[in-house]
Amino acid sequence: MRGAVLYGPRDVRFEERDVPRIVKPTDVIIRITATCVCGSDLWPYRGIQSIAQPTPMGHEYCGIVEDIGSAVTSVKPGQFVIGSFFASDNTCPNCQVGYQSSCQHAEFVSTAQAPLLRVPLADGTLVAIPDVPSDDMVPSLLALSDVMGTGWFAADAANVKPGKTVVVVGDGAVGLLGVLSAKQMGADRIIAMSRHESRQKLAREFGATDIVTARGDEGVERIKQLTNGIGADSVLECVGTQQSMMQAIQSTRRGGYVGYVGVPHGVELNGEQLFFAHVHLHGGPAPVRRYLPELIKLVWDGKINPGKVFDVTLPLDQVAEAYRAMDERRAIKTLLRP
Amino acid sequence: MRGAVLYGPRDVRFEERDVPRIVKPTDVIIRITATCVCGSDLWPYRGIQSIAQPTPMGHEYCGIVEDIGSAVTSVKPGQFVIGSFFASDNTCPNCQVGYQSSCQHAEFVSTAQAPLLRVPLADGTLVAIPDVPSDDMVPSLLALSDVMGTGWFAADAANVKPGKTVVVVGDGAVGLLGVLSAKQMGADRIIAMSRHESRQKLAREFGATDIVTARGDEGVERIKQLTNGIGADSVLECVGTQQSMMQAIQSTRRGGYVGYVGVPHGVELNGEQLFFAHVHLHGGPAPVRRYLPELIKLVWDGKINPGKVFDVTLPLDQVAEAYRAMDERRAIKTLLRP
Repeated sequence: MRGAVLYGPRDVRFEERDVPRIVKPTDVIIRITATCVCGSDLWPYRGIQSIAQPTPMGHEYCGIVEDIGSAVTSVKPGQFVIGSFFASDNTCPNCQVGYQSSCQHAEFVSTAQAPLLRVPLADGTLVAIPDVPSDDMVPSLLALSDVMGTGWFAADAANVKPGKTVVVVGDGAVGLLGVLSAKQMGADRIIAMSRHESRQKLAREFGATDIVTARGDEGVERIKQLTNGIGADSVLECVGTQQSMMQAIQSTRRGGYVGYVGVPHGVELNGEQLFFAHVHLHGGPAPVRRYLPELIKLVWDGKINPGKVFDVTLPLDQVAEAYRAMDERRAIKTLLRP
Repeated sequence: MRGAVLYGPRDVRFEERDVPRIVKPTDVIIRITATCVCGSDLWPYRGIQSIAQPTPMGHEYCGIVEDIGSAVTSVKPGQFVIGSFFASDNTCPNCQVGYQSSCQHAEFVSTAQAPLLRVPLADGTLVAIPDVPSDDMVPSLLALSDVMGTGWFAADAANVKPGKTVVVVGDGAVGLLGVLSAKQMGADRIIAMSRHESRQKLAREFGATDIVTARGDEGVERIKQLTNGIGADSVLECVGTQQSMMQAIQSTRRGGYVGYVGVPHGVELNGEQLFFAHVHLHGGPAPVRRYLPELIKLVWDGKINPGKVFDVTLPLDQVAEAYRAMDERRAIKTLLRP
């Protein structure tokens, strides 16, 4: 079969890869219905995060179970399933408290941009949906594999509640779905920080009430102006840079909450600055598995449509163009169909 | 009158200072019943935090109202009052959400090691107790001015709940009162990290169920051994160094809570490390004012006795010895009587 392999900065190739097979009795093989490119794939694609060797790519997936290991009991061939980018046993102490992305036996699922995918710890990782979905529901179900669950975790970690004022830092797909999550959780006012017109439009569609185009200190100043000088109750950090992290912390009111899900690159928090900011801080790799049943139900019932973040769809063999479109910000997020 | 003035490293003098007077109509003058030396006073005393000029000292206080400004309505001369080290108006937006130590008009009360003290924003800052207390209750009431409220905030910020497992990093007076706070909040297991026998004894008296003498990585390893390999639900950081902060974060289970109240000195948190630790982080200067009514009631009703942290009592004119005793760790905390 052919799949995506990253060779170096801006060099993604669609080439022959080994067909995945059941290795452990807890494995499942999925025939991919849809996969996509993640904002975090752009870190190694841009060379900001180095890779040691040619690396198969892709960690967002949904599809039909093709084959199951001998110990698998919760899914069966023919079912349509979704899983998180971190495979988890869903039984260890970390999973039991809802942090499946810190599962003691976690394995990163990293070869999903291909027609077939091996998912380890399948009973703990995969959730089957009620039936094979209609084609137009696939993008929203695919979004649950990472980007929607991550936006949802950002909002949850930022303690979004009905009536609250929320700021979202970052207008990538995660930030936009952070807006949707905050809306779904009942936030009264949702301020999206974005300077791209197409993203502002989608942010408004998802529930943003205000747009702030300024960044850094100027952006913080603007947030203060919009919140009676005190800052927001909840701030979602969906980028992962020093500037975005500080922008998030400084936009939060005293006693407010920062939920951060952007994978940090070069972020250092000064202890004293954090101390006097008086905010709550929580985040990390989203425990997507925790939220899957709830989010699947919301998509299945037509309550949310996170698949709208996919503004470009390409056949899988054009994966290189999918990366380029996102790198050049021509696409918010690109969906790939094998 | 004579009071404490810090001249430089390990040079505290008891010398003539101006008698404080009402400056603003919202001021109150208190005749100090008792004051004390704070662990945070040792940062400038040891020269770790530099001072620009001879500096009057002291921010923990209780005493009898001597004089009130024309706008003061909530306390009257003759009443016994306690206030926080941060004067606050208790009406601004930050105060209203319970973060009085971030009051928009906060003033640090910094001249309490003296017979008389001016307290600004008196209506917002001071709480009168039901009656003039007996002499043996004074130490516990004095403790509410900072150290007890700070230990309580650490436990609150660390989300201590009935049945939980709690670790306390730091065996100074704040850490010990963090133990007492966790016990009062219903923690099931309280592990005090301490290597000093007299402090271990008081920790056990306050409710510690286990003592860990190891520090750093070895200390974290020991905590993991005591918590089925996963770490504690809640960890109170009561020191303020890089080592203690990392010890706290790494001793916390995934999804657990770190409450940090040690004033950070040279602390830098690596974003990536924090991201994958998956903990909740909250702390800062304790909003003691928020807790005063509740804590006064607990002391008044004899439910808690935080004054036990004062293991040395001296007349105020021996303030230099009070600092020395704490610096050399001969005293946990020294109470001073004018």
